[in-house]
Amino acid sequence: MIKDKSFLIVGLGLLGGSMAMGLKKWNHKIYAIDIDKNAIAYALENGIIDEGSTETDAEIIGKADVIISGLYPSLIVDWIADNQKYFKSGALVTDVTGVKGAIVDKIQNILRPDCQFIGVHPMAGKEVSGVQYADPSIFLPANLIITPTEKNTQQAIDFIYEMGKELRFNNICQLSVAEHDKMIGYLSQLTHVIAVSLMNANDSHNLKEYTGDSFRDLTRIAKINEHLWTELFLLNKENLVQQIETFVAEINDFKDALEKEDVEKMKQKFITSTERRKYFDK
Amino acid sequence: MIKDKSFLIVGLGLLGGSMAMGLKKWNHKIYAIDIDKNAIAYALENGIIDEGSTETDAEIIGKADVIISGLYPSLIVDWIADNQKYFKSGALVTDVTGVKGAIVDKIQNILRPDCQFIGVHPMAGKEVSGVQYADPSIFLPANLIITPTEKNTQQAIDFIYEMGKELRFNNICQLSVAEHDKMIGYLSQLTHVIAVSLMNANDSHNLKEYTGDSFRDLTRIAKINEHLWTELFLLNKENLVQQIETFVAEINDFKDALEKEDVEKMKQKFITSTERRKYFDK
Repeated sequence: MIKDKSFLIVGLGLLGGSMAMGLKKWNHKIYAIDIDKNAIAYALENGIIDEGSTETDAEIIGKADVIISGLYPSLIVDWIADNQKYFKSGALVTDVTGVKGAIVDKIQNILRPDCQFIGVHPMAGKEVSGVQYADPSIFLPANLIITPTEKNTQQAIDFIYEMGKELRFNNICQLSVAEHDKMIGYLSQLTHVIAVSLMNANDSHNLKEYTGDSFRDLTRIAKINEHLWTELFLLNKENLVQQIETFVAEINDFKDALEKEDVEKMKQKFITSTERRKYFDK
Repeated sequence: MIKDKSFLIVGLGLLGGSMAMGLKKWNHKIYAIDIDKNAIAYALENGIIDEGSTETDAEIIGKADVIISGLYPSLIVDWIADNQKYFKSGALVTDVTGVKGAIVDKIQNILRPDCQFIGVHPMAGKEVSGVQYADPSIFLPANLIITPTEKNTQQAIDFIYEMGKELRFNNICQLSVAEHDKMIGYLSQLTHVIAVSLMNANDSHNLKEYTGDSFRDLTRIAKINEHLWTELFLLNKENLVQQIETFVAEINDFKDALEKEDVEKMKQKFITSTERRKYFDK
């Protein structure tokens, strides 16, 4: 168990707010910095945080044992570079970013030697954003992936495990930065590209009344934050392009079997997909 | 309301069994023919049907006001050709097949002039098959699509509407045969091809512990009956090949934007997909 720690959330959106709420239950001190005064006011009024600021507040930053960045990936490195002078000695810095290769190395290379950055990806979310939608129950069915490097101590890794348990994640696991980004390119990013492309392939709003659950399930994630996901995709471009190419080759192979009426090949593809999907049943 | 009709279900699987159960609640007589003696025995024991046979039973066939084919599409035309000599004069014949172009014309061309065939597609199902999984509540959220032609009377169309209401379908609507098959190629068949291809693109069972809801939602329908869906795809080949090509062009256009780091184009695609998906919110 983690005892009596001070957490600073930088960027108090849906994920940061949900972590704040989950950690608050364990009586930790929770601070937050966000440029949006409404977000800070809402979080203070609703008891989500103990103290907050819309400015770079050296005093708040200096009080935190743990700093959690909920910032967009494009902002996180600069924020740490600009503000690490205020960090408490020994502070543990972490994040919630969906790609790791593009930031972990950079941050670890610039960070003060008496502090430590460890990459964390909570695989949780909603189709809405903002602290007003924060809800720690989004972590209950979710994975927390930790991407430590040789620059992280076992103590820091253990701390993130404990934090994940306090936040009641369903599963906490470790991957290397490279494994994480490859996996996320397939399981998350490719699925979003597919949903978006399926939605965009036809102007189909006139088909609404004929739509069943299959189409709705496949396109649910086509409602997507264009700013965040453009960044995430560009930061994992190489992996994602490769995943798209592998998928397109597979779907074209299916089309080829269909055009040639190769019944055995089609059946074999259905049998394979059925077998593989069974592994993912909950 | 339909009163005191006799229904014959030919091919008593999940859909036929669910229709039998739903119609039985309205005190219609329900007969069934299936080559599987276990299916008939189960349905009789559980009060799903009044009478059943594993043989081509001229007496049962001759008693039915309405004949519903739950047969595979490859069997339906021959079954009608072989057995229409037993049909009651004025019998209404219908089906549950997921494609229409390949069967409606053929059946209407061979059918006795004193009977009538009208195509019906209940867009409902489960990932399992067999009468033992039959459950009329699968129709509650579902669409019933009727595909009448100029060979159908208004009375027959009205009858199917009433039957759909008794079965408590969420929505009952009409499409031409061509419109139906084009729509189903996009909304249903393409989504299944995508789910199967996503599942087959990587041997990913080692990724199970990292998998979130998005991937599970997109691949749920990758568990698929290889015999039925191979038939359905081949019977709608032209439409489905075109839908796959349109989708692949769209996903390749996305990949192109990603490779060129065309931020504005990527954002525009996300904005479009978000807007379009909103139409499909329930």
